[in-house]
Amino acid sequence: MEEKLYNIRHSLAHLLAIASLEHDRDAKLSVGPVTDNGFYYDIDFSDDKTLTPEDLKVLERTMIKQINKKLSFVRKEVSAEDARKQFTNNPYKLAIIDDIEKSGEAVSLYSTGDFVDLCEGKHVENTSEINAKCFTLTHLAGAYWRGDEKNPMLTRIYGVAFETEEELKAYLLQQEEAKKRDHRKIGQDQELFFIDEMVGKGLVMWLPKGTIIRDTIEKFAVKTEEENGYLRVVTPLIAKEELFLTSGHLPYYKDDMYPPMVMDDGTYYLRAMNCPHHHRIFCHKPHSYRDLPLRYAEYGTVYRNERSGTLAGLLRVRALAMNDAHIYCRKDQVEAEFQSVMKLIMNYFEVFGLGDYWFRLSKWSPEHKEKYIDQPENWEYAESVLRKVLQDMHVNFVEVENEAAFYGPKVDVQFKSIIGREETMSTIQLDFLAKERFGLEYTDSDGSKNNEVFVIHRAPLSTHERFLAFLIEHYAGAFPLWLAPVQVVVLPIGENHQVYAKEVTDTLKAKNIRVELDLDNNSLGKRVRNAKMQKVPYLIVIGDKEVEGKCVTLEHRSEGSLGSKTLEECTNLFEEIIASKG
Amino acid sequence: MEEKLYNIRHSLAHLLAIASLEHDRDAKLSVGPVTDNGFYYDIDFSDDKTLTPEDLKVLERTMIKQINKKLSFVRKEVSAEDARKQFTNNPYKLAIIDDIEKSGEAVSLYSTGDFVDLCEGKHVENTSEINAKCFTLTHLAGAYWRGDEKNPMLTRIYGVAFETEEELKAYLLQQEEAKKRDHRKIGQDQELFFIDEMVGKGLVMWLPKGTIIRDTIEKFAVKTEEENGYLRVVTPLIAKEELFLTSGHLPYYKDDMYPPMVMDDGTYYLRAMNCPHHHRIFCHKPHSYRDLPLRYAEYGTVYRNERSGTLAGLLRVRALAMNDAHIYCRKDQVEAEFQSVMKLIMNYFEVFGLGDYWFRLSKWSPEHKEKYIDQPENWEYAESVLRKVLQDMHVNFVEVENEAAFYGPKVDVQFKSIIGREETMSTIQLDFLAKERFGLEYTDSDGSKNNEVFVIHRAPLSTHERFLAFLIEHYAGAFPLWLAPVQVVVLPIGENHQVYAKEVTDTLKAKNIRVELDLDNNSLGKRVRNAKMQKVPYLIVIGDKEVEGKCVTLEHRSEGSLGSKTLEECTNLFEEIIASKG
Repeated sequence: MEEKLYNIRHSLAHLLAIASLEHDRDAKLSVGPVTDNGFYYDIDFSDDKTLTPEDLKVLERTMIKQINKKLSFVRKEVSAEDARKQFTNNPYKLAIIDDIEKSGEAVSLYSTGDFVDLCEGKHVENTSEINAKCFTLTHLAGAYWRGDEKNPMLTRIYGVAFETEEELKAYLLQQEEAKKRDHRKIGQDQELFFIDEMVGKGLVMWLPKGTIIRDTIEKFAVKTEEENGYLRVVTPLIAKEELFLTSGHLPYYKDDMYPPMVMDDGTYYLRAMNCPHHHRIFCHKPHSYRDLPLRYAEYGTVYRNERSGTLAGLLRVRALAMNDAHIYCRKDQVEAEFQSVMKLIMNYFEVFGLGDYWFRLSKWSPEHKEKYIDQPENWEYAESVLRKVLQDMHVNFVEVENEAAFYGPKVDVQFKSIIGREETMSTIQLDFLAKERFGLEYTDSDGSKNNEVFVIHRAPLSTHERFLAFLIEHYAGAFPLWLAPVQVVVLPIGENHQVYAKEVTDTLKAKNIRVELDLDNNSLGKRVRNAKMQKVPYLIVIGDKEVEGKCVTLEHRSEGSLGSKTLEECTNLFEEIIASKG
Repeated sequence: MEEKLYNIRHSLAHLLAIASLEHDRDAKLSVGPVTDNGFYYDIDFSDDKTLTPEDLKVLERTMIKQINKKLSFVRKEVSAEDARKQFTNNPYKLAIIDDIEKSGEAVSLYSTGDFVDLCEGKHVENTSEINAKCFTLTHLAGAYWRGDEKNPMLTRIYGVAFETEEELKAYLLQQEEAKKRDHRKIGQDQELFFIDEMVGKGLVMWLPKGTIIRDTIEKFAVKTEEENGYLRVVTPLIAKEELFLTSGHLPYYKDDMYPPMVMDDGTYYLRAMNCPHHHRIFCHKPHSYRDLPLRYAEYGTVYRNERSGTLAGLLRVRALAMNDAHIYCRKDQVEAEFQSVMKLIMNYFEVFGLGDYWFRLSKWSPEHKEKYIDQPENWEYAESVLRKVLQDMHVNFVEVENEAAFYGPKVDVQFKSIIGREETMSTIQLDFLAKERFGLEYTDSDGSKNNEVFVIHRAPLSTHERFLAFLIEHYAGAFPLWLAPVQVVVLPIGENHQVYAKEVTDTLKAKNIRVELDLDNNSLGKRVRNAKMQKVPYLIVIGDKEVEGKCVTLEHRSEGSLGSKTLEECTNLFEEIIASKG
């Protein structure tokens, strides 16, 4: 963020504090930082002064008044002792002062008119630098002091701010779009999935329509991987602690795992990753150099102990299903295998119409050896192989230090989602630690044992949950035909058209088209609107003309009417589009 | 068991005791009951007199000597006090005497020659009634006194016995066959699955070849159920205790469940059944009478806390995958739905070539009301519906009282496996409790709420684990073509035939035939034997003649050579057989 924009946002946080104190003179301020798009302030209001969304406009007006007053921001460094006198009745500020004192840094105050806040800066020189039309307060939320649920719940007031009015408008428009594309809303409207409090937070219940999308993607992935020489396996979702002690997940990853279950023969854990199980399958029998590479694929679910407060929709969940696989290969095969995984991923993304991505080579850092397995030669080798593959493939990539997994470097696939959120969609990791921990080895061509077994971890389609959230937003719920849970709706105009409509439906069904017959009593217009609201790709309308002519009238959800067609023309069209994953 | 046979087996147990005391005069006898096929005796031998399998022949000879002595079995009732004097140094017998005394029954002793045993009978009058050629001691095992692992481990000596020599021979032959068909042995030989101690007992690791069989069955079930109007869902394997308290699994089923996991928002359990999750899917939105029946299907895995000591192969496991479904229907739909599930099951079994089964109508018992939901009218109604369906379908069935689930009656499918073991393969349950516990309801045609939602629980293909064990034994590992993990092996005779063999392999692969190219250096004869040992259905041999004639020589694993064929003839043959699930 540019310094100027930062200063504007930071200053607005102070003006928000002033407005809040005008609303409740006993309100206790805590922190008011800058965010990616604006700012917020966490405030402890008096019980009888709780804020409602309607109050935000009032606060905004007060802030604008302050801007118009052309107030200066004046910095003053004071001793911790003096600072404490300023905030006697505010436990939050006092706690922050303690922290600053401990850190040995200077305690600074900023005053704006009569208002004084504990703050390290920076700010605009004068509120006249802020365009009053470039900010708005967006919403309220609850936030625990210091993010700890044992602490009091404060009110967080969010605002967004930009340098120009155009930027603010563009941002708000994008937010509007994001809201329409929100995967939680579309997931509910289209009955794709839901979260059930009685089952538990972060545990997705996939409804029939969502399951169709999931299964269609899964089938596609299974077929693609079969063609690419992967072998499918099925392994249990739990294992003894011995397995996770061997892999190193215990104790290093323990906090992210579900609590242990003590059984009569040992302690068991829900798995947080599939790799240890696959390593054990590799170890199940001896291998020759000719057997490699071995690629074990599994549609595995893993369980991770996320804090319940952070769980939301499909993006933060506790059970993650993924099209996972681990490739066991010789050192001389690493490059080719890595490249073929890269191609696989790029092929997947092309099928889903996703083009806006780039790669990130995440490397270790020799300065942070405590975070990584200390084998500089292997790091150098592995990173150079990955870099070579990226270069040879002429793909767009950046290199980042100190972002690798502890067992090896990785290539992340970075996405900018259609609503502007950047995220890591999938990752390919090269692992040179597993061979030591699990004793992976093979018999070489000269009959000797070779333990240079490299493992590639890959989950090209991310987790099911994250990928579906992404796709829902990407398509704004208008799934392409091959993925749409309902592909066609058949709409008989009147009762005397129902018999033929049923015939049409059955014919399509027999061709494995996912078709629904809408016999509702609503008017045709309403039923057409319903189907389009549900983003069903094709509508077939049946009236007198169609019954007589043994034909159908075909309509596309967005392209409009496609005119009269024979049923055969329809099924051919559908089958062709589906076969090409359109 | 007939009385005479019982008496023979029971008497042989006493003769085994005599022989054991001859082996170790300080051995302490505990119990020696009759089994389905013979008898055993649990004995505490002195440390220096531990039995080895070789000793069994010696014991047998001693037993035969006793038979030839024509000894009488003489019963005598005594007081508990007198009985205790007889067994002063034997803690096991003393404990049994205590139990008999508590029960108020008579304490009886049986003497055979000089040997006296505590026993309630009955026995043969004289050992001359026993044919010395009709029994044999089969094996040794360890057994905790009273089945409790805190008690001492005793030696259990197993014997089998019949009335005639022919019966014994037939039984031993069947056992021989059973050993060859043992799913654990075939599972290992064919690399279908394994159990990994580091992962945990009772948790199956499915290897690539076993996964193919599993997936093929699953695909078949999914397709069949799609055609039968089932909707697929995916739900998490865990849930909060609230869900299981609602369903009643807690506290009633708690001992069979994995231990709880305490998270930051409540207590979670691995599920032992899929139904509660499906009930919640039903409750997710309101339903009209027109929406029913609703059939939710899921390939769900459930986890059950079996004692580690009881776990074995695929038959006693802790994680059970099953093709599960729950049907929610109105009262007037129960009969039709139940019948259609019956048909589905019978159709499945026909496809797998399983004919040797019958049905068992398991009813409640008004005399055991504590075990069942107390709604006599519903029981009567539900049982009569099930009986009517069974009668209308003219299937072979028996009725059994006091065998129902606590929430409703069920129809079990009983199988006699090819090796003579009777087992329940699948079960269809009618549930009229779920509607109360979960508030299942629908809006009736008159607009009123109707809570008469009946639930049918069904898992036609049993659990994956049990069904696979059954199929492996049924086919003795020789899976039909559609299920075989490797369907065809291509065997080039010499090196100069490899190029064409590769061509043949690729052509078959492109037709989705599961084919392997065997380029091993072994002789053709050895490679043919290997393929047949692995029970691969078809072998294709490529030599000079085949390369020249652009043809192949086809051989079936058991039918022998099928002569020369074009590749097209082969693929047509394979595709035809696979399509018909042959």
